[in-house]
Amino acid sequence: MLVTPRTLSGFRDHLPKEAIAKEKLLKKVTQVFESFGFVPIETPHMEYAEVLIKQGSKEIQKELYRFQDHGGRDVALRFDQTVPLARFISQYRNELPLPFKRYVVGNVFRGERAQRGRYREFTQCDFDFIGSNSIACDAEIIQVIYASMLSLGIEDFTIWLNHRSILNGICQYFGIKEETDIQNALRIIDKIDKIGPEGVSAELKEALRLTDKTIEALLKTTSIKQTQDKEEFFAEIAPMKQWNAELKKGIEELEQMYQILQDLEMDKSSYRVNFSIARGLAYYTGIIYETTITRLKSLGSVCSGGRYDNLTKTFSKESMSGVGASIGLDRLLVGLEDLGLLSQKSTTARILIICTNEKYLSLAHRIAESFRRSEVNTEVYPEITKLKKQLSYADQKGHEFSVIIGEEEYKNRALTLKNMTTGIQLDCLSFLKALEIIKS
Amino acid sequence: MLVTPRTLSGFRDHLPKEAIAKEKLLKKVTQVFESFGFVPIETPHMEYAEVLIKQGSKEIQKELYRFQDHGGRDVALRFDQTVPLARFISQYRNELPLPFKRYVVGNVFRGERAQRGRYREFTQCDFDFIGSNSIACDAEIIQVIYASMLSLGIEDFTIWLNHRSILNGICQYFGIKEETDIQNALRIIDKIDKIGPEGVSAELKEALRLTDKTIEALLKTTSIKQTQDKEEFFAEIAPMKQWNAELKKGIEELEQMYQILQDLEMDKSSYRVNFSIARGLAYYTGIIYETTITRLKSLGSVCSGGRYDNLTKTFSKESMSGVGASIGLDRLLVGLEDLGLLSQKSTTARILIICTNEKYLSLAHRIAESFRRSEVNTEVYPEITKLKKQLSYADQKGHEFSVIIGEEEYKNRALTLKNMTTGIQLDCLSFLKALEIIKS
Repeated sequence: MLVTPRTLSGFRDHLPKEAIAKEKLLKKVTQVFESFGFVPIETPHMEYAEVLIKQGSKEIQKELYRFQDHGGRDVALRFDQTVPLARFISQYRNELPLPFKRYVVGNVFRGERAQRGRYREFTQCDFDFIGSNSIACDAEIIQVIYASMLSLGIEDFTIWLNHRSILNGICQYFGIKEETDIQNALRIIDKIDKIGPEGVSAELKEALRLTDKTIEALLKTTSIKQTQDKEEFFAEIAPMKQWNAELKKGIEELEQMYQILQDLEMDKSSYRVNFSIARGLAYYTGIIYETTITRLKSLGSVCSGGRYDNLTKTFSKESMSGVGASIGLDRLLVGLEDLGLLSQKSTTARILIICTNEKYLSLAHRIAESFRRSEVNTEVYPEITKLKKQLSYADQKGHEFSVIIGEEEYKNRALTLKNMTTGIQLDCLSFLKALEIIKS
Repeated sequence: MLVTPRTLSGFRDHLPKEAIAKEKLLKKVTQVFESFGFVPIETPHMEYAEVLIKQGSKEIQKELYRFQDHGGRDVALRFDQTVPLARFISQYRNELPLPFKRYVVGNVFRGERAQRGRYREFTQCDFDFIGSNSIACDAEIIQVIYASMLSLGIEDFTIWLNHRSILNGICQYFGIKEETDIQNALRIIDKIDKIGPEGVSAELKEALRLTDKTIEALLKTTSIKQTQDKEEFFAEIAPMKQWNAELKKGIEELEQMYQILQDLEMDKSSYRVNFSIARGLAYYTGIIYETTITRLKSLGSVCSGGRYDNLTKTFSKESMSGVGASIGLDRLLVGLEDLGLLSQKSTTARILIICTNEKYLSLAHRIAESFRRSEVNTEVYPEITKLKKQLSYADQKGHEFSVIIGEEEYKNRALTLKNMTTGIQLDCLSFLKALEIIKS
């Protein structure tokens, strides 16, 4: 009996074109992370369940892939990279010089209801700055997001900034005092893009029994968005600092971070305050942010994060502050595709070498060696078949050039070069001439 | 109640030093794979159990992490990258131009008994050439192994070559005829490094009831190893081609591959025939190989592989031939460490910028931006603390240089550069002068 070759629902393969594009994207952003001194770490995909469930929300506990291993241990697959980071920091606290800046690229697992664009296994790409309360760290994370976007060729984007204390302060001002109520309110407000203001109003009314008037004022306040320059904007919101201590703290910290950012060579229109940014996650305690690509608003945030003050609370009584962000890799790939910034190739080689006779194969391999030594990735078609078949293989995979070795070429120790895009063929070139054309 | 921060037995974290070294190693070898036109693909860590168990040995089925998912599906974590490749090839057969050359870097899971140097989750790094029977593909895999070793700075290594038909032919010649008996014999002979010739003799005697004399002759034959040059060696073993058809086929195919390899610019002493290479795995059908580092013989093979003819048999009636190898990443890391070829740094940044006053922090960030634009990875210490503490952070992590910004430097728009290895400090340099020193 044959087995049907298929992936599990909600899981997927990356074919070469996607995998090449993903590799390139990761190479670019990890290069940015490293340019700021973030270091890679690696933790297992599987952990003791207790390590993961203590910090996860109820929602996430339901989605956890959890089972007994061979030794009867209660284990689970990680659902994010932050909880393993908390475990890691607590475990190696004495070996890690603080502040600790790490990045990680790895897959996480959530048994969510399968739906379009949502996968049960997906790659997270996180970078975090642990063990310092300095606002300079928050600013650096914004800098890294900025540099990452530029490295990917994305020019028109906005990093939307907010502060959990601002949201808390606004909630308190409008009479929402309990921590759980505030979190509930923020969770609902965060859904505004999905369910619209009416939906949010209805849910707020039902969940928190607020008056229509309060809800209206609350939504108006959380919809404040910076459209003018820094001085003007902060002058305009300055009166809110009087509302309560939380608002004061939030606005002042945002201003401090602005001060650092404005001194750097970043386009000032690329980051702006937006009081509607709530980040659903309960663990944020300071400045928070989301990143949208201007031409692709409906895509949602492609890089989000913020400061959290209780990273290691599950494992240690000492508190440890951190700030970090996560790149939404899958969304970003969709976005880059839409912007025409993704490579459409299914090959990593620029050249395919083609032979029409067994006799020339060894010359073909020697020519390939020479191209590789000149840093040109080169593939040799391994069999002797029709020229047409070999050229169509190059076409399908996206090689830029074919190098053809036939009788004439063999005799003259030369090669024929075909540009696969233009179709232009140059016969019997020397290796050096061909290399020059390929490298130009 | 606090949770103890710990990993599962047999699982491990990579701290920055190890993770940086591993990343570098992977970057080098994947660059080699891509230079030959191998393309990356990605498959999920989790599959339907039936997809994985049909091809796995009994041993591996016992070690499988297998459980029911939320939808009651019988699922398991992959234990290698070859079975998922077989599923992948069968599933996308019509979309993939053949021959298909893929590489993959990813983690696999085996619930083995925990022991030193063996992990339950480990990274596999495979490259395979699918859909062609040409010996040129076998030769190319050897070329890739060769180029990979050189790219890692390993110069003294041997790729040991053998052929499953040679082993089958030898077994048949000594009266071991049944396929299961042959596999059993090969599995036992493969243990020679672990249990010695006496151990192997004893096991062969018990399992196959061979006479002492036959065992002696069998072991003598399988211990044939090429010590002389190609012509001489193949002349010496030529009479064995008369023993039976299997031996004839095996020796001739090895000779054909030798012909291709000898035409390339590879050091001829780096690959040699060795009849004792058995590769425990039943699925090999053609040329097989292992790679040892000369100075680290006890390490075992760091890159092994071979040709298999029935890759997709679980999923399809059509047979599909492939040839490929797998880099033993963990072993290789141990080996490179022993050879002193591993980076000992815990940082990805070359420079740490240090400030002694809040006032200079923004200048520090601007200087960092300039270094990064000149492609020098640069970290800024995010807090204002004692100079000594910041320098000791740079020492611990392994930054090559510290850049110190104090009162003098701030006033003169200059910087002080300290070489962390030599301790030499140059005061109040211009940025360009400092850059020149760092880049020299």
